[in-house]
Amino acid sequence: MLELFHYEPTANSAKPMICLKEKGLDFVSHYIDLHAFEQHGPEYVKINPNGQVPALRHDGRIITESTVINEYLEDVFPQIPLRPADPYERAQMRIWSKFVDEYYCPALSLIGWHHLIEGIVKDLGAEKFEAYLARIPLHEQREKWRLAATKSFPKEQLDEAVRKLRFSMKRHEERLQGSPWLAGSTFSLADVNTYSMTAAMPFFFSEFVNEKDTPRTLEWLQAMQARPGVQAAMAMAKKPMRPPAG
Amino acid sequence: MLELFHYEPTANSAKPMICLKEKGLDFVSHYIDLHAFEQHGPEYVKINPNGQVPALRHDGRIITESTVINEYLEDVFPQIPLRPADPYERAQMRIWSKFVDEYYCPALSLIGWHHLIEGIVKDLGAEKFEAYLARIPLHEQREKWRLAATKSFPKEQLDEAVRKLRFSMKRHEERLQGSPWLAGSTFSLADVNTYSMTAAMPFFFSEFVNEKDTPRTLEWLQAMQARPGVQAAMAMAKKPMRPPAG
Repeated sequence: MLELFHYEPTANSAKPMICLKEKGLDFVSHYIDLHAFEQHGPEYVKINPNGQVPALRHDGRIITESTVINEYLEDVFPQIPLRPADPYERAQMRIWSKFVDEYYCPALSLIGWHHLIEGIVKDLGAEKFEAYLARIPLHEQREKWRLAATKSFPKEQLDEAVRKLRFSMKRHEERLQGSPWLAGSTFSLADVNTYSMTAAMPFFFSEFVNEKDTPRTLEWLQAMQARPGVQAAMAMAKKPMRPPAG
Repeated sequence: MLELFHYEPTANSAKPMICLKEKGLDFVSHYIDLHAFEQHGPEYVKINPNGQVPALRHDGRIITESTVINEYLEDVFPQIPLRPADPYERAQMRIWSKFVDEYYCPALSLIGWHHLIEGIVKDLGAEKFEAYLARIPLHEQREKWRLAATKSFPKEQLDEAVRKLRFSMKRHEERLQGSPWLAGSTFSLADVNTYSMTAAMPFFFSEFVNEKDTPRTLEWLQAMQARPGVQAAMAMAKKPMRPPAG
C-alpha cells in the first residue's frame, strides 16, 4: 500500500503528488496541515523525525525527501517511466533536480516564508507560538520560523534570494533552448520536480518571468498544465488556489 | 572512453575516483590543479561551464556533479553495483548522499576554505588575484574566494559551520547503529560519497570525532580504508597527504 503524507499540491509536497498521478498509481492521502503546525506534532514526527512533508509510506517502510521519493517510485514502479531511458539525459535530469533542490528552491523558500509566515502566526499569541517552536525537531527550521514570524530576515539575505531567483529563471529559460523538457527530449522528474516551484513565478516575479524575457518557460508551464497527471495532482488542493492580490 | 577531470582524491573529486576504482573501470585521468586555478581557465570552462571539478567525459558527452556522475556510472556500468538492490536501501543511500551534499559538505567546505585559501593566494599579488577572480564563472564562488582570501568569513558563519559539522557527525554515528554501511546492509554510493569528506575528521575535529563519541564512525573509516578500490583511488594522489600539523 502506498500512502503519501503531504500538504497542498505546492512546493515539495506537489513533487510526489504529480509523480504518483503521472504514473497512475493509487495512494492513500494523509493531509498534514502546515498552517496548524501538524508537521511538528508528535503523530507526524513518528513518520518523519525531521518534521517535514512530504513522506511516503510503502508497505510500512518510510521514504522522505521529495526528490528521493520520486526516484524510489521509479525504482519500484517503472511501468510508466519518468526517468529518460538515455543515461546522459537521465544525468541531466538529476543535475537539474539538484540545482532546484540546492539553489532555486532555498531562494524561493526564503522569499515565501518572508511573505507568508507572519500571517500564519499572527493570531497565535506569543505563548502558543513558543510552544509550537519548541516542538520543531531541526535547529535550522526553528530559527527560520522565529525570523520569519517577525519578518526579520536580513535585507541582504532577501536581496540575495531574489538575485538567485533571477539567475535560476535565466538558467531555466536557457535549459529549454532547443529541447521541450528540462532533461532534454523527454518529459521527466526534472519537470515534475520544478513545476510546482515555478507555476506562480510569472505572477510574483513578472519583472523577470514574462513573455519577453522567458517565452520558453511560459510555454513549458502551459505544456505542464495541459498534462492530465499534473491536473489530477492540482485537483487535490483543499484550499482554493487564489490568484495573488494586486 | 571514460575521462575524468579531477583534482586530488579528496572532497568531491574523490567521489567518482573511488566509484570508478571500486567498479574496476579504466579511465583517462585529467588532473586539474586547483592551486593553479586551472578549474576557472578557458580550457576547463569548455568542459564544465561552472568551473568546478570533477567532470566526467564519456564518449564525448560530459556529466558534471559528483553525486550525479556516480549514479550515471551505475546506470551505464551496472556490472559491479554500488547501489543497493533493495529499493528502500537505495532510497536511504540517496537520502544520505543528499544530506552530505546539502548540509555536511557545505559546512566542511566553509571551514576548509577558511583555513586553506589564504595560503594558496598569499604569494599571488593583488593584481594577479583579481585577474583570477574575474574568470570565475559562478557569482557565489567569486564571493567565496574573495572572503576566504582575506580570512573574512563572519565569525557567526564559521561557528554555525562547526555546529553543523558536530551535528553531521552525530547523525553519521547514529546512522551506523545496527548496520555496517551508511545505506544499511550494503556498501554503496552513500559510503563512497561520504568517505573523502570524513577521512580527516578525527584529526581536525578530535573534540567530537573520537573513540568515545564516534566509535562506529572510526570503525567505518577503517573498513573504508581497507577496501582495495578506496586504496587505488587514494594512490592517485599527486601531492603527498600530510598528517595535519600539531
